[in-house]
Amino acid sequence: MQEITTVALDAMGGDNAPQEIVLGAVKATNERRDLKVLLVGDEAAIKNSLSSHSYKENQIEIVPASEVIETSEAPVNAIRKKKDSSIVVGMKLVKEKKADAFVSAGSSGAILVGGQVIIGRIKGVERAPMAPLIPTDKGISLLVDSGANVDARASHLVQFAKMGSIYIEHVIGKKNPKVALVNVGAEEEKGNALVKETFPLLKAEKDINFVGSVEARDIPYGEVDVVVAEGFAGNIIIKMYEGVGGVLFKKIKDSLLSNLRSKIGALLIKPALKGMMKSFDATEYGGAPLLGLNALVVKTHGNAKSKEIRNTLIQCITFKEQKISDKIRESIVKED
Amino acid sequence: MQEITTVALDAMGGDNAPQEIVLGAVKATNERRDLKVLLVGDEAAIKNSLSSHSYKENQIEIVPASEVIETSEAPVNAIRKKKDSSIVVGMKLVKEKKADAFVSAGSSGAILVGGQVIIGRIKGVERAPMAPLIPTDKGISLLVDSGANVDARASHLVQFAKMGSIYIEHVIGKKNPKVALVNVGAEEEKGNALVKETFPLLKAEKDINFVGSVEARDIPYGEVDVVVAEGFAGNIIIKMYEGVGGVLFKKIKDSLLSNLRSKIGALLIKPALKGMMKSFDATEYGGAPLLGLNALVVKTHGNAKSKEIRNTLIQCITFKEQKISDKIRESIVKED
Repeated sequence: MQEITTVALDAMGGDNAPQEIVLGAVKATNERRDLKVLLVGDEAAIKNSLSSHSYKENQIEIVPASEVIETSEAPVNAIRKKKDSSIVVGMKLVKEKKADAFVSAGSSGAILVGGQVIIGRIKGVERAPMAPLIPTDKGISLLVDSGANVDARASHLVQFAKMGSIYIEHVIGKKNPKVALVNVGAEEEKGNALVKETFPLLKAEKDINFVGSVEARDIPYGEVDVVVAEGFAGNIIIKMYEGVGGVLFKKIKDSLLSNLRSKIGALLIKPALKGMMKSFDATEYGGAPLLGLNALVVKTHGNAKSKEIRNTLIQCITFKEQKISDKIRESIVKED
Repeated sequence: MQEITTVALDAMGGDNAPQEIVLGAVKATNERRDLKVLLVGDEAAIKNSLSSHSYKENQIEIVPASEVIETSEAPVNAIRKKKDSSIVVGMKLVKEKKADAFVSAGSSGAILVGGQVIIGRIKGVERAPMAPLIPTDKGISLLVDSGANVDARASHLVQFAKMGSIYIEHVIGKKNPKVALVNVGAEEEKGNALVKETFPLLKAEKDINFVGSVEARDIPYGEVDVVVAEGFAGNIIIKMYEGVGGVLFKKIKDSLLSNLRSKIGALLIKPALKGMMKSFDATEYGGAPLLGLNALVVKTHGNAKSKEIRNTLIQCITFKEQKISDKIRESIVKED
């Protein structure tokens, strides 16, 4: 019999909850028989959203939770106080092994805190990084850490590199992925104190294919598969993607509507441009996993629509099938 | 009588030396009577480049220098050893008050080291940041520091903010510029240790219009005028601009050439798109000054063409006219 992956899905998180979240669950379960989704949140609202879709009733279950953690709330406090929030209830399902993974489009801070406090880190893992897939000219790369750990230390970055390498090799399927450390120049002697301390440690790692430094300029070209950065730097990388991409698309749109000639041109290029934009859209690739926890926790974009939720749920299946947590545990334990 | 600004220009630096550098000098001096350019470098090569242009002989002078510092050379060593390089000779002209400013498209490292060692910092200035103008949706902002000082401290960042504010107010002409600190979130309690230490110091500064944190995502939208960051973070910001912009333009081009329909559309939108790309091209705005030195030093892009050189030379005139070094000196001394 086929093994089933059970995912606890926060039905109340993000800008488009619960409709788009529920629809994502419907899409994924309609496609995959080996997936079960526990929709956590306001029972009436979820039922209402479900009622407009046709879905497999044995693959979708509602787990009631009466509270919602808002993105504006202080995370530590929210996790402690709101025991019946969709995030706390969903994570407890994972802790109690009633689910294999937890997915949410809600408060990043609460997901980070809850992940560490409720689900817990794998023994030996010092910090759990957030690891989103980022679009590149060649396809996708993995960024570890996109902001879960500011002021991370060299030993943390080494673990980020190992966990990122395992994730992209086994979940995304890139063999022997190239791992690089974000730096201000390509030369080994360049860098800040953290990079200079981390570089030789990464170089000495036998488990990973460390290719040296990567300058931020080269990240979007997809020269490397796993981009290792301390959380503050990684956060700038992911947000510059959004910011530069967003402004450029806005400027292109404005310029195309600036006169009749370019308006006609715009109609002709629309399909080609749309395909291009889609390939550079981070939401195409599902959410960002928090690596190094006892079970998979994934944060999707706050504005996630059903497609991103669907993609994320299906990645959870691969994560379980490939026994990523076991592989991380082995890799980290070997280190100790 | 009109005051003359004399600029020592490294004729040998960058990918397009000496032709484009010399042409930039010719353009600027043909436009401005209050500018004199000392072209520093290989006399024969400079003469050869000059010979194809018509220029005002009393505004352009050649200062011979027999050596060139390559970008691959270790900066400290190169500055010490290559006494007759265009960078060292040019900077000495400034030190000896034979020139008001030094401009180069050559080795960033050598310019940074030479600036500190030969020209020297204004008394009280702890670190000299590199401060390029960056394109935004609303126009331009100033980024301080784009990478001259990795591992900068809180007191450095406060000086960066003050110097950047003076520069953009008096050279670029933005009154009461909004100054913000790059951070991982908008809330005051967010940030790494450096940001948390710097934030209250900036808040307490009376001289600047400090508006709080700016997330990297919002920088390209031009929400703030002076973007303050430690050099490692600032370097990522400037390089992500290049990387994301470069890949997106490449992808747009590829998609427009993908079929006949979009090829025809591309012809129609070309003028509008070109104008848009121009407005988002960092080289439009001249080079990046090193702030806080006893005289102005500007690093242009390595691939600078005559237009960027021309723009930079003209900015040197404003820098002198506005007595920026004096203003920085006063601002920093007041602090002490």
